Amino acid sequence: MKKLQLLIVTSLLCFGSVVAQQNVNNVQLELKQPIQRKNIRIPDIEGFKTLKGDFHIHTVFSDGLVWPTIRVQECWAEGIDVMAITDHIEYRPHKKHIKDGHNQSYNLLVNEAKKNNIILVKATEITRDMPPGHLNALFITDAEAMDKLKVEDAFEAVKKQDGLMLWNHPGWKAQQPDTCLIHEVHKKLIKEGLVQGMEVMNYNEWYPLVLQWCIDYNLAVFANSDIHGVSGYVYDVKNAHRPMTLLFAKERSQKGVREAIGSARTIAWFDQQLAGPEDLVKQLFEASVTLKPVFHSDEKFVYRELCNNSDIQFSFVNETKDNGAPHAFKLEPGKTIVIRLNKDANAFNVTIDNCHTGMSDKLQVSLM
Amino acid sequence: MKKLQLLIVTSLLCFGSVVAQQNVNNVQLELKQPIQRKNIRIPDIEGFKTLKGDFHIHTVFSDGLVWPTIRVQECWAEGIDVMAITDHIEYRPHKKHIKDGHNQSYNLLVNEAKKNNIILVKATEITRDMPPGHLNALFITDAEAMDKLKVEDAFEAVKKQDGLMLWNHPGWKAQQPDTCLIHEVHKKLIKEGLVQGMEVMNYNEWYPLVLQWCIDYNLAVFANSDIHGVSGYVYDVKNAHRPMTLLFAKERSQKGVREAIGSARTIAWFDQQLAGPEDLVKQLFEASVTLKPVFHSDEKFVYRELCNNSDIQFSFVNETKDNGAPHAFKLEPGKTIVIRLNKDANAFNVTIDNCHTGMSDKLQVSLM
Amino acid sequence: MKKLQLLIVTSLLCFGSVVAQQNVNNVQLELKQPIQRKNIRIPDIEGFKTLKGDFHIHTVFSDGLVWPTIRVQECWAEGIDVMAITDHIEYRPHKKHIKDGHNQSYNLLVNEAKKNNIILVKATEITRDMPPGHLNALFITDAEAMDKLKVEDAFEAVKKQDGLMLWNHPGWKAQQPDTCLIHEVHKKLIKEGLVQGMEVMNYNEWYPLVLQWCIDYNLAVFANSDIHGVSGYVYDVKNAHRPMTLLFAKERSQKGVREAIGSARTIAWFDQQLAGPEDLVKQLFEASVTLKPVFHSDEKFVYRELCNNSDIQFSFVNETKDNGAPHAFKLEPGKTIVIRLNKDANAFNVTIDNCHTGMSDKLQVSLM
Amino acid sequence: MKKLQLLIVTSLLCFGSVVAQQNVNNVQLELKQPIQRKNIRIPDIEGFKTLKGDFHIHTVFSDGLVWPTIRVQECWAEGIDVMAITDHIEYRPHKKHIKDGHNQSYNLLVNEAKKNNIILVKATEITRDMPPGHLNALFITDAEAMDKLKVEDAFEAVKKQDGLMLWNHPGWKAQQPDTCLIHEVHKKLIKEGLVQGMEVMNYNEWYPLVLQWCIDYNLAVFANSDIHGVSGYVYDVKNAHRPMTLLFAKERSQKGVREAIGSARTIAWFDQQLAGPEDLVKQLFEASVTLKPVFHSDEKFVYRELCNNSDIQFSFVNETKDNGAPHAFKLEPGKTIVIRLNKDANAFNVTIDNCHTGMSDKLQVSLM
Repeated sequence: MKKLQLLIVTSLLCFGSVVAQQNVNNVQLELKQPIQRKNIRIPDIEGFKTLKGDFHIHTVFSDGLVWPTIRVQECWAEGIDVMAITDHIEYRPHKKHIKDGHNQSYNLLVNEAKKNNIILVKATEITRDMPPGHLNALFITDAEAMDKLKVEDAFEAVKKQDGLMLWNHPGWKAQQPDTCLIHEVHKKLIKEGLVQGMEVMNYNEWYPLVLQWCIDYNLAVFANSDIHGVSGYVYDVKNAHRPMTLLFAKERSQKGVREAIGSARTIAWFDQQLAGPEDLVKQLFEASVTLKPVFHSDEKFVYRELCNNSDIQFSFVNETKDNGAPHAFKLEPGKTIVIRLNKDANAFNVTIDNCHTGMSDKLQVSLM
Repeated sequence: MKKLQLLIVTSLLCFGSVVAQQNVNNVQLELKQPIQRKNIRIPDIEGFKTLKGDFHIHTVFSDGLVWPTIRVQECWAEGIDVMAITDHIEYRPHKKHIKDGHNQSYNLLVNEAKKNNIILVKATEITRDMPPGHLNALFITDAEAMDKLKVEDAFEAVKKQDGLMLWNHPGWKAQQPDTCLIHEVHKKLIKEGLVQGMEVMNYNEWYPLVLQWCIDYNLAVFANSDIHGVSGYVYDVKNAHRPMTLLFAKERSQKGVREAIGSARTIAWFDQQLAGPEDLVKQLFEASVTLKPVFHSDEKFVYRELCNNSDIQFSFVNETKDNGAPHAFKLEPGKTIVIRLNKDANAFNVTIDNCHTGMSDKLQVSLM
Repeated sequence: MKKLQLLIVTSLLCFGSVVAQQNVNNVQLELKQPIQRKNIRIPDIEGFKTLKGDFHIHTVFSDGLVWPTIRVQECWAEGIDVMAITDHIEYRPHKKHIKDGHNQSYNLLVNEAKKNNIILVKATEITRDMPPGHLNALFITDAEAMDKLKVEDAFEAVKKQDGLMLWNHPGWKAQQPDTCLIHEVHKKLIKEGLVQGMEVMNYNEWYPLVLQWCIDYNLAVFANSDIHGVSGYVYDVKNAHRPMTLLFAKERSQKGVREAIGSARTIAWFDQQLAGPEDLVKQLFEASVTLKPVFHSDEKFVYRELCNNSDIQFSFVNETKDNGAPHAFKLEPGKTIVIRLNKDANAFNVTIDNCHTGMSDKLQVSLM
Repeated sequence: MKKLQLLIVTSLLCFGSVVAQQNVNNVQLELKQPIQRKNIRIPDIEGFKTLKGDFHIHTVFSDGLVWPTIRVQECWAEGIDVMAITDHIEYRPHKKHIKDGHNQSYNLLVNEAKKNNIILVKATEITRDMPPGHLNALFITDAEAMDKLKVEDAFEAVKKQDGLMLWNHPGWKAQQPDTCLIHEVHKKLIKEGLVQGMEVMNYNEWYPLVLQWCIDYNLAVFANSDIHGVSGYVYDVKNAHRPMTLLFAKERSQKGVREAIGSARTIAWFDQQLAGPEDLVKQLFEASVTLKPVFHSDEKFVYRELCNNSDIQFSFVNETKDNGAPHAFKLEPGKTIVIRLNKDANAFNVTIDNCHTGMSDKLQVSLM
């Protein structure tokens, strides 16, 4: 040790105390992963603000594997505006270790959410066999009240607290392996206005039939992660994204979110697939993609830019024969391509192959 | 065409409703993030297997933010061979919610580690003011025994259980803001053989002076993450890596790990910096980098490939004047560059700028 | 062969002729690199459209290594609006193989540029020893006229064709190894209005002193690539970009570009460094970065989002002591961070460390 | 200017002359794209060295868009060992500008290839209507001799020069839109030993039927890029790769390459598809993938690592029912997965779905 102390004194003479000590005692190396919030570019539509939501998230307080705090950090970094922690009422495998009640995960997060400008919807997951299966109760005030023997009593409690429900993963094979049916109980809950939405996408699954139900019953579509582990290990959060429910809200607030759900103004988005009511999907497409005016022409062709201002990828199928445009092409997020059209082309009708507006319907657009 | 239509009809008979229903009920979309274990390429050295370790990891059972299970998943995916959960004895901010004892995080993991071929070292972090600061007790059998009022009694318990200790982040400014000193207690513990290593890298910090101590006292150097949140949100685990302790072990087992630590056969690695004893660093460099024979020559020059077989980046400074090679260059992981040398060059001595072999020493190599 | 034909016939029976032949004869695999135009997000400033230009590009018609066509493809894909091919008059190492005159590279490109909506400025590089060094003549009509023995005659030809010139890489060590001086010839050309700009960035070099000259003489700053090889092999065109001259133009046209240069309304941009006149840099910063209103407050702090709407990274140094904000931080392209300020903080003055407004000046902004 | 020079002198006093002048005159910014050679990890097989080749490349000397030099740079950076420039004899659209003869592109490259340790095979492309279509003549000595009116005379010249030929893209729809046939001329050339291989992959196309021909006739399979533009703009050279012909050679030399082709010891590789003779594909798979011994077992299962030491991705389909392993999974380059097998499983037979060993055959492997 003496030799060492001598060395330090010597080095002080050469470089000056502050610098030398900094360099020898403690050097800050680079963390290559700065946590900043990704601004996902999805345009607003006429009269509404576009919000991104995930309404199905677990923590260690049910069968999730992370502390609630991590969930706000994830949502914030991934560009999400509104989230709901939906720990199971009936399934709590860590209960031996974590004994708190059903409101605890929310209580631990509420302040963290505020500091990060995240709208936190108080929620829980009622978790039963089919029917009725799993339902998320949103906008509740006390999750303890949903801890009932009879599921009808849990529903009653949601109603009393002025909450609403969404039906989770109706096409999940574990609960409907051979069928995908709406049961009487669901019809009743829809009729009463207690169920106001369904997941058409959950985790990595998507249910075209459920989209059709939402359109037929005028319910909000949802795309939720149902995340149990770490989001960045399940989804490629850098180059892709978790399932997200796009909400078209009058304002960025709890009230705005609830009104958008109640009015079925949502679109489900995951893995470059959009699913929702035709008018909304069309408005979002048109706010995202522009076929610009002719910038050049020669004897045979006119040239126009097709520009994508959003972070959504669109897949085009050209339905007009012999207009000179390619048969099928993808337009990547934030990119532009040049479309060459025959001078005498008088139509450019396309199917947007990744925009689902019904069980077997896709968005049809006339680009000219 | 008629024949074809017939064929399609036939196929409907074969596959029929199931296929159709599958598509409408439940479509599997793509998760872009398959969890597979990254094989980090770091060559073995003569007589020893190179293992990658992280000996400083927290969970919700102290002040971490994830359930223990996540820690095995992270380590496995990131290519780590040996890990230690080191939840604090004295600092448990989630205690209100999680009441289990100090062995619980280990107990929850031990089977998960076995199934993933990860060597799990039983451990805990003794967490005191400086001196003695924070020390990780490794290879213990019962962490409850370290829960003592007097730190000396905790050390005694480690000794009784035949454990060993490493001194964490000696250059941490929160505990030594203006100095970086070894105290009498540390010298005593080293002398007794109870402290067998020190962290020269922790989180994003690196302490050149501590490297010098390890070399002078013949202790194992460690680079540990001290991770509290999610590894992939702190480090770029795809293109970079967490701090890792490279161990040169006689076998891939608990026994092999312990023997390597006891023999100070380790190198610290983070953010393209290596720190350790000169002989080990040199052996690792030479196992990783090869200057191949002349493959071409002309009137003035000979041409040779300099090839990096490892996932470590090396930064070269050419110390031989006028040998024709560039003054400074980096050799990326798994890459090759062509070195052009003067025909009459008779030396190619380099400093490897990112290979630290002492407080202010870097690896010197003669490449010819 | 007979056996094979038999196999095909058999397979026809199973799968139908068209499908079978497609699959067996020719399968389209995936090219992972679709060429689409990147829309670089740099906002317009009040009254002007922001264009991206590169005014220094070579082809095989001088000492470049690609056919002119590639240059339009590169510029288009990289989001460039205006480009100039500046093949050397005096240095044509491929002349033995390519005998065409000095207008050929432009002629081969003019139609390709039109089809891709790229503004192609006709240009050439006058390539002499220092002084005067290398100058790009822009907006010329016939490059042959610059092929003169005496450089004064070349300048005269530029003037006659109503062109203008920019002085290339004044800080290039090959021509000014120990100095960086303006010579009399440059002062004369500036006075005459023939030189209207200088490169403050070229390839990977940046010349702070030349920025000072541009500001003192009111000349346009340029950042050009001087590319000879393939752009994507020199620059990381996916995650970063080539040097670009940002022009603030009244319209997206040749006329608009020329007026912006003549009015010195340009900023140089490369490797996250911006260099230009203070008023322009400030306007661009303010169009890119927004400190949003308080969204949350508690006893001690207010919370505000700092949002970057551009593809430029900004490095902040907090110059106000004790206002609660961090000392230094980077704001990545398209990202948001939360700024926590003391409730009683009444200033938030920052230096934008990567925004150069003079030889040793950086942009100063008051964020509150 | 005087004011400026004063400023410099002032700054000298503060910081010292060298540093100040460097910083003000010329700062080196970072090029984010260092050109280093990627070492593609494909293991050797018993008795042979695995080389990577591309035998179909164009330059400005026919209808390519880059100078020959770029081609060596690309191949070197992409990890290719052996390349052939195959400029068309009959199609030279730039002839108006570039008048040199058919040997010029080779002559310009031969030294550049030597300096980069690339094996450059002298070659040309005989470019005719079908039949015979396009054929690359390799290992020739004078491409001028292939410039003949009658294609038979060109073939004769190849023979005289002791060259050999490969038949390019036999499934190309431009030449065989509705069929994919071997013509009499091809059969004759194969019989004579002049045609020793065929492209089973070209650009982004793959021809399963042609693979079958190669196997039936015992010819070498080729995967070539047929690159005309810039490789990095067509292929994702960072995360993926161009089509490559894997050669299993006795030595890394012209001689070794020729012997491997003559012995049909090649495999075609592109977009995660391998195509070749069963014995070679199997040897390559077995050199790449290892199912390691049991590292853990419990009551029901044994656990084993399946490890991929190569940069090739493999897609597994489990053909053994009820052995506990998943039905289908991908093993990424350089990754490991854990396979859990039933304790009583006595077989683990898999189809490697991306390894083609015939028109409709895939590699079958027994992993236990």
